[in-house]
Amino acid sequence: GLWYALDVPPGTPLNAVLAEGQEEVDRLAVSAARPLAGATPVAPLRPGKIVAIGLNYLDHIREAGMDKPERPLMFAKFPSSVIGPGEPIVIDADLTERVDWEVELAAVIGTPLRHASPSQALAGVAGYTVANDVSARDLQFADGQWTRGKSLDTFCPLGPAIVTPDELGDPQALRLWTAVNGETVQDSSTAEMLFGVAELLAYCSRAFTLEPGDLVLTGTPWGCGEFMDPRRSLRPGDTVEVGVEGIGTLSNPVAGGPR
Amino acid sequence: GLWYALDVPPGTPLNAVLAEGQEEVDRLAVSAARPLAGATPVAPLRPGKIVAIGLNYLDHIREAGMDKPERPLMFAKFPSSVIGPGEPIVIDADLTERVDWEVELAAVIGTPLRHASPSQALAGVAGYTVANDVSARDLQFADGQWTRGKSLDTFCPLGPAIVTPDELGDPQALRLWTAVNGETVQDSSTAEMLFGVAELLAYCSRAFTLEPGDLVLTGTPWGCGEFMDPRRSLRPGDTVEVGVEGIGTLSNPVAGGPR
Repeated sequence: GLWYALDVPPGTPLNAVLAEGQEEVDRLAVSAARPLAGATPVAPLRPGKIVAIGLNYLDHIREAGMDKPERPLMFAKFPSSVIGPGEPIVIDADLTERVDWEVELAAVIGTPLRHASPSQALAGVAGYTVANDVSARDLQFADGQWTRGKSLDTFCPLGPAIVTPDELGDPQALRLWTAVNGETVQDSSTAEMLFGVAELLAYCSRAFTLEPGDLVLTGTPWGCGEFMDPRRSLRPGDTVEVGVEGIGTLSNPVAGGPR
Repeated sequence: GLWYALDVPPGTPLNAVLAEGQEEVDRLAVSAARPLAGATPVAPLRPGKIVAIGLNYLDHIREAGMDKPERPLMFAKFPSSVIGPGEPIVIDADLTERVDWEVELAAVIGTPLRHASPSQALAGVAGYTVANDVSARDLQFADGQWTRGKSLDTFCPLGPAIVTPDELGDPQALRLWTAVNGETVQDSSTAEMLFGVAELLAYCSRAFTLEPGDLVLTGTPWGCGEFMDPRRSLRPGDTVEVGVEGIGTLSNPVAGGPR
């Protein structure tokens, strides 16, 4: 089923919800459906760890002028960066002036995965959601290590729903897009992934355990502002929408000032 | 007081324990003291996020032949890598053959820190523990991003205790060392830190919220195996001990094979 809202307090750990089993998740989703209709649709659930993958779309690799990675390029976003639909992405002008969007298909882990085959890995996915892997390009490139520039507070919008695999169908045949102030800037398909969801999860699980409530972000396609000529960045007052076919659209305003 | 053991199940989230307040922490510590005497001293508590800092000791920077960073170099270790005292560090020979030790002073966050001054940051520390920032050098350098090579399962031993700031005294005047099979390989002082604990936490809190139960690893001094001539690595059968003055010694055997 489609979890378009869960009747839990904001910040509830995702693994606590998943541990209750699918029936309870469905019950929470149903009970939340009516009261939240027309309101903020999903309380942001707190993932365990967020594993992110860089340079995983063939069209984005061409755009960035990079070589095709021989293996998935892994990095981390801290869970403290998570916000939900409608919450502002806050740009601290003292830290960064090059903030970029990245639409991504995100897999929510449902069962522990360790040394999983690609098909075992897919079977361990509880559902999929949309992530905006917001990135402070100046920090990312100056630091070398991407952790800080990817983990500023508010830099991981998630939502608007978690859709179960049976509802979503083939995760490698989904349109995904970004619009800034209504203008489409990213528009591609998960078919452009260099390493598909199954292969990415299996790869991660060879290094470490993927645990229930963990999130794996699967990379972004062409159309980031950083690689446009002239370069584009998000500014306070903008609205950024990211969407994945079959899941929905996640919309966040952009605000200025420290949070 | 000194939390040398807490009467909680293994894997208990650290923030859940801290949320109960200092009195409850002391009660748990006292109640656990007797039954665990002589046994495994601390159930590994599960931190929220693990923020780690690279190249933060002047003697290690010289050893690595690197330039002194202008700001703290931040990276992440996934919390799934945490083990406790006595548990084996497992080397998967299919993944890595260059596994290194790194003794570190680790700060356990007790109160939320955001835009904290250095003195506010220090006041938000619940306690200190010892971390071994075990590192797969081949993965770390081949990937470029350090996340995977630093986050293999079992690659973050923590313990043997969490010592509160009042017990520990000045965190910048502590001897810290590593011994492999009884031979001292690292032996330095936290006085060698380029950026001290207070400055590191304040720096992190300018980018994101440090939350109760988060852990900040503050870097390692000279004496890593990677920079020795000839290079040295951990092997199955080794025992690695890391210690910090005033906290204690954390000992872990090294084992082979996938875990």
